[in-house]
Amino acid sequence: MLKTLVHKETINYDGSQLQAHWIYKKFGLLGDAAVAFRGEVKVSLDKMIDLIDVKVKEDIYSPLMLNFIIEHFDTDLELAGYRQRLFMVVIKEELEQFEIPVQRMGDDLYVNRGKLSVSIATRSLVSTLIHVGLNIETEGTPVKTAGLRELGIVDIDAFADKVMLRYKMELEQIYEYRCKVKGIANES
Amino acid sequence: MLKTLVHKETINYDGSQLQAHWIYKKFGLLGDAAVAFRGEVKVSLDKMIDLIDVKVKEDIYSPLMLNFIIEHFDTDLELAGYRQRLFMVVIKEELEQFEIPVQRMGDDLYVNRGKLSVSIATRSLVSTLIHVGLNIETEGTPVKTAGLRELGIVDIDAFADKVMLRYKMELEQIYEYRCKVKGIANES
Amino acid sequence: MLKTLVHKETINYDGSQLQAHWIYKKFGLLGDAAVAFRGEVKVSLDKMIDLIDVKVKEDIYSPLMLNFIIEHFDTDLELAGYRQRLFMVVIKEELEQFEIPVQRMGDDLYVNRGKLSVSIATRSLVSTLIHVGLNIETEGTPVKTAGLRELGIVDIDAFADKVMLRYKMELEQIYEYRCKVKGIANES
Amino acid sequence: MLKTLVHKETINYDGSQLQAHWIYKKFGLLGDAAVAFRGEVKVSLDKMIDLIDVKVKEDIYSPLMLNFIIEHFDTDLELAGYRQRLFMVVIKEELEQFEIPVQRMGDDLYVNRGKLSVSIATRSLVSTLIHVGLNIETEGTPVKTAGLRELGIVDIDAFADKVMLRYKMELEQIYEYRCKVKGIANES
Amino acid sequence: MLKTLVHKETINYDGSQLQAHWIYKKFGLLGDAAVAFRGEVKVSLDKMIDLIDVKVKEDIYSPLMLNFIIEHFDTDLELAGYRQRLFMVVIKEELEQFEIPVQRMGDDLYVNRGKLSVSIATRSLVSTLIHVGLNIETEGTPVKTAGLRELGIVDIDAFADKVMLRYKMELEQIYEYRCKVKGIANES
Amino acid sequence: MLKTLVHKETINYDGSQLQAHWIYKKFGLLGDAAVAFRGEVKVSLDKMIDLIDVKVKEDIYSPLMLNFIIEHFDTDLELAGYRQRLFMVVIKEELEQFEIPVQRMGDDLYVNRGKLSVSIATRSLVSTLIHVGLNIETEGTPVKTAGLRELGIVDIDAFADKVMLRYKMELEQIYEYRCKVKGIANES
Repeated sequence: MLKTLVHKETINYDGSQLQAHWIYKKFGLLGDAAVAFRGEVKVSLDKMIDLIDVKVKEDIYSPLMLNFIIEHFDTDLELAGYRQRLFMVVIKEELEQFEIPVQRMGDDLYVNRGKLSVSIATRSLVSTLIHVGLNIETEGTPVKTAGLRELGIVDIDAFADKVMLRYKMELEQIYEYRCKVKGIANES
Repeated sequence: MLKTLVHKETINYDGSQLQAHWIYKKFGLLGDAAVAFRGEVKVSLDKMIDLIDVKVKEDIYSPLMLNFIIEHFDTDLELAGYRQRLFMVVIKEELEQFEIPVQRMGDDLYVNRGKLSVSIATRSLVSTLIHVGLNIETEGTPVKTAGLRELGIVDIDAFADKVMLRYKMELEQIYEYRCKVKGIANES
Repeated sequence: MLKTLVHKETINYDGSQLQAHWIYKKFGLLGDAAVAFRGEVKVSLDKMIDLIDVKVKEDIYSPLMLNFIIEHFDTDLELAGYRQRLFMVVIKEELEQFEIPVQRMGDDLYVNRGKLSVSIATRSLVSTLIHVGLNIETEGTPVKTAGLRELGIVDIDAFADKVMLRYKMELEQIYEYRCKVKGIANES
Repeated sequence: MLKTLVHKETINYDGSQLQAHWIYKKFGLLGDAAVAFRGEVKVSLDKMIDLIDVKVKEDIYSPLMLNFIIEHFDTDLELAGYRQRLFMVVIKEELEQFEIPVQRMGDDLYVNRGKLSVSIATRSLVSTLIHVGLNIETEGTPVKTAGLRELGIVDIDAFADKVMLRYKMELEQIYEYRCKVKGIANES
Repeated sequence: MLKTLVHKETINYDGSQLQAHWIYKKFGLLGDAAVAFRGEVKVSLDKMIDLIDVKVKEDIYSPLMLNFIIEHFDTDLELAGYRQRLFMVVIKEELEQFEIPVQRMGDDLYVNRGKLSVSIATRSLVSTLIHVGLNIETEGTPVKTAGLRELGIVDIDAFADKVMLRYKMELEQIYEYRCKVKGIANES
Repeated sequence: MLKTLVHKETINYDGSQLQAHWIYKKFGLLGDAAVAFRGEVKVSLDKMIDLIDVKVKEDIYSPLMLNFIIEHFDTDLELAGYRQRLFMVVIKEELEQFEIPVQRMGDDLYVNRGKLSVSIATRSLVSTLIHVGLNIETEGTPVKTAGLRELGIVDIDAFADKVMLRYKMELEQIYEYRCKVKGIANES
């Protein structure tokens, strides 16, 4: 059962939050969990973990993002890739409730060719970790971006909450699905 | 590397196609693969593998569907649940190219509250298997449905091909992703 | 989250209950679950799945047992062996609350050298399955046995309930444990 | 096949012993192994790996403990949780041979409400590791404790040996169990 | 620890021996094991499990083979593929002790372009299974073959024994290897 | 699909090359890959990861080796042990094409009792890594060695290329094998 939390205060994200047990140490949530908070995002080259970003020396910066940190206590990095994608899909589908058309390209979201998101998934020794950031404001971002504010999402916290609940529901459905389907033992 | 094939001839789907190596025996494709074909879909209660369907005795019938069978040679049923969802998302996103707005509810797709799809994922002794059917025509279906024909998808084969290529691309990206991200060994 | 249920009506156990989704089909509990019920236990040779029992042609019979069926939707048979043992330990510890001293020998329980239990763990295509039976009455059993009745356990259903809650609590603790411990990345 | 060793000389335990290959480097035992030794136990906050202990800043101290270090060369932390519990159960059952009634609460052992044990399980990059300490003497411990000396366990080394042999036997039985049980392929 | 056995009496192999627990039921060896026996090999199409053989309708026949059946109680079919190859290599290397030059092509062995071996690996619900057959005599085989007799291997049982001991030693080395190597936690 | 590359320039190997993503960072090959290069090999004690080497303080030195680094993006150290062995076998078999008789002892290769190779397999947080070095020249090596030059292998790069292609082919065959074999569901 995924635990979720929207944190009301600002936390600036610099990459050091993407760490095993950060959610537990910061918020006291034990076990699989997703948390959301607002804050500036600025990741320096030495903290980047996507080696292609490192190679192209692409800066990661946004003046204000809605950040999600998700931790699952298994260590399957492939599964984490699927979960990351599912989370991006869930954001897209929540935005569609506001009649905002979103393009997903892999694990990135675009609105009117403006990049809305950054996202990364990795593993620690005991868990897999996902960070997703959605621009709220876009001033000073290094590429053409879109932001939640300009898209008309006023209540950021409510939005964050709904996204995480959708994700949680997806996970529960996948679990239930797995428990209700007959396997196929024989082949003719 | 997923192999894909659009089969031009009609095959009626009655559930017996959802079997280990069916793709190999029928089409000679060895290894992870997705194939598409058109045909009537009619699954009797004793062939159903979704136990909730069995419980509610819900008939599965469509006069003409675009069918996809996907086989992955690993046996992780949880992963299969994520892949099934990803495949549904990919269909939704391909339909959005035609400006058709689609609602995804778990592993079902809806257009204007009409059910477009049936889908199931399960495992055999050596693989996981997914079947997805999209109504082409909808006459005689037991619930309110939507069909590709009425949505203006004329070239069904081309559509099927694009969906499978999108899916293939997603899988490749997830693999590449896994190979370019640094793990996080220590926690402070 | 394990679901648990004490079924009030008698079900005779002949081995055919140890099957994937039996709990779901019989009681509607979807997902990992443990259920308890009373009934005669009589397993014929062709239904036995412990090959050593088959080899020695040892009959399994008890006029009235408290039966537990446990299903976990993963397929790790080694883990199932540990869980089976944990369940036996939990029964022993619940009996100790009644000041009944119990000897555990592997996955069997003894009171005053009388065999209290039968137990088996196996896997299906989608799950692992455990059956545990505790003699309530012992008339006609093929070996020297002990029974809950003679040990003074009057409220069998309450006892069953407590055992399953203990087991559930153990599982939750193991999960929480896994989520609160730092890994050790480096060796000196 | 688990290797076991009772080390006769004192080693003080400060947490740095819980490391991959420590057993091999110290005692030359290669592969899955359990070793026992006596020594003071004093783990400072920065060496603690149970984050709840860290949070509550609970000191770990005992003037003299019987320590067990166990290393299994797989990396399944969930399984390690089950093994840790099994080891505690095995200690409890060995103490029962001396007619000492022991309460197990999760992975802790109590005698007459005095805490007998500390225990932790974690993983390294190549293995899972368990530390269990049983008070021999209890002077100066931060909570109410029980100690093996006062319980009448005179021959600590013999006791340690028997505990490890019991544990080894359990592991072998679980393995043999796994190899003698028929799987259940079909469901009706 | 792999158990090994050379059975002195003839058993004709028709494919039904490749089954979970066959070794245990036939020889009483519990757990991972390899057994060898001599016998005619004749596998009819409906018993074949290599689907490419089925497709090309290639008969499997030899008047007298040295047969090995190997069972490992895990269910990783990929690992079984590596083990099968390792077993073929080990046969090749044992034959090299007799100065017989052997060509390995995948999981087949050839001497002077004559096919020496048949081999298959698959999985059951609880284990992986390997069958390897080496021609002793070659009369009536459907393709050009080589046989142990004509290669000068006189003591078939001793040969079988040495092959299995080599294989066992390889497995033990791989296990020990795994236990003595440091992981690499960080990347610069 | 394994990517392979023969690097024409010299790189001296000191152990720091055996690291996650080294191949990607150095050569831009993303995903499972094998690369070959020539260079001096000199690994100091603190960089050694084979703890038995560390224990016996055995120097690793060769004036010029053909080095292979192989990275697979899964973290199964047991599988890595099998792959390491398969790679050594493949080198042996390629040398046999030149009519050079090679002795394999575990993961070492010998020609006329001269040690031809060093080799190690380990894991990082995201991958398994293999290093294999084959002496080209042997001056100053601490034990009796054999070198490719004296064995008459003139075109080292072509040799390296063929070895890696053989290995790649083996991996592909194992994969295809896994996809064409029927599982065995039931036991009689």
